[in-house]
Amino acid sequence: MNKIITIGREFGSGGRELGKRLSQLLGFAYYDNEIITEISKRTALSEEYVNAITEHRPIFSYPIHFGNSFNAVNNHALQQNIEVFRAQSDVIKEMAEKSDCVIVGRCADYILRGEKPYRIFVYADENSKIARCREKAGEHEHLSDKQLKRYIKAVDKNRAQYYRFHTENKWGARENYDLCVNTSNTPVKDLAEMLSHLFF
Amino acid sequence: MNKIITIGREFGSGGRELGKRLSQLLGFAYYDNEIITEISKRTALSEEYVNAITEHRPIFSYPIHFGNSFNAVNNHALQQNIEVFRAQSDVIKEMAEKSDCVIVGRCADYILRGEKPYRIFVYADENSKIARCREKAGEHEHLSDKQLKRYIKAVDKNRAQYYRFHTENKWGARENYDLCVNTSNTPVKDLAEMLSHLFF
Repeated sequence: MNKIITIGREFGSGGRELGKRLSQLLGFAYYDNEIITEISKRTALSEEYVNAITEHRPIFSYPIHFGNSFNAVNNHALQQNIEVFRAQSDVIKEMAEKSDCVIVGRCADYILRGEKPYRIFVYADENSKIARCREKAGEHEHLSDKQLKRYIKAVDKNRAQYYRFHTENKWGARENYDLCVNTSNTPVKDLAEMLSHLFF
Repeated sequence: MNKIITIGREFGSGGRELGKRLSQLLGFAYYDNEIITEISKRTALSEEYVNAITEHRPIFSYPIHFGNSFNAVNNHALQQNIEVFRAQSDVIKEMAEKSDCVIVGRCADYILRGEKPYRIFVYADENSKIARCREKAGEHEHLSDKQLKRYIKAVDKNRAQYYRFHTENKWGARENYDLCVNTSNTPVKDLAEMLSHLFF
């Protein structure tokens, strides 16, 4: 059976860096945006759209008023979300079958629960996450600290809702993981090096 | 500055074993019951009594009826608890000053917060904790699984209340730790070996 490591992570916690470093140290395949690209191919939806869908709980309302166009739109969105989740499950299962791998995000811990992956959750305190976002020049440059805080919270809230919707489990609750790693006070490089020893 | 590792742990999770193994691998001092022995010496209270106090929130009521003997008893218990916590803080600080060390339980993570210890929390799922308790022949042998479950929950509830009372933090909440380790699916021996690499 292949060795599979799944990584859930708070936005700005360095979970992606941890996953990448770990995969390099171990010589494992690394899957992150590759999952989005593959779902996009299979569903003929754009990568941006798939990315948005796979980090948000679907918006939908119960069809109380049949024939109401608002509900029709929402139910279409729900159907699309379920279709994307199905493709996502297929893609992730196929990736896990191919070789030892590290998979970041996208409910992989839940989708692969039958394969007994090693489930890591990466988190950090607020100041540490803001500092990490600031280090990366890019789309968050124009945000004030207050705005960035709000943005980080919103992303994590969406991830939590998406996870809850598809898995019925609580995102980030320690009982759903084998290891919860705080990156606030320890370099990600050192944590990856430490973790690698569990899989040699 | 000495390297300090503190270990909070659910009852039956193997936290003590993890701490002991880690201290042996690293050549660090190991403190667990040694703390109780030392407090007992300093306060002239029996080890059993100190042990009971350091895992329970003090029972006390507000002195609404002055002179009421019930309150007098309760307030005496509270005073004793605070006295023991003070001795506990002194003992733990002295131990941490002496050499690199691993300290299990007793709010050491909070008491030593100024020294930036590496704070580990060890947990496991219910079945795994029951199995671990069963492995150790001893005081729990006569309990049914149902009784043992209740016992484990009660011990952890007391630890959580004691921690909350003295630190005002939530026991076991991931934000208060650098690493939360689930021992349900990974041998404690392997986890200790992995963790040791962070401190070489």
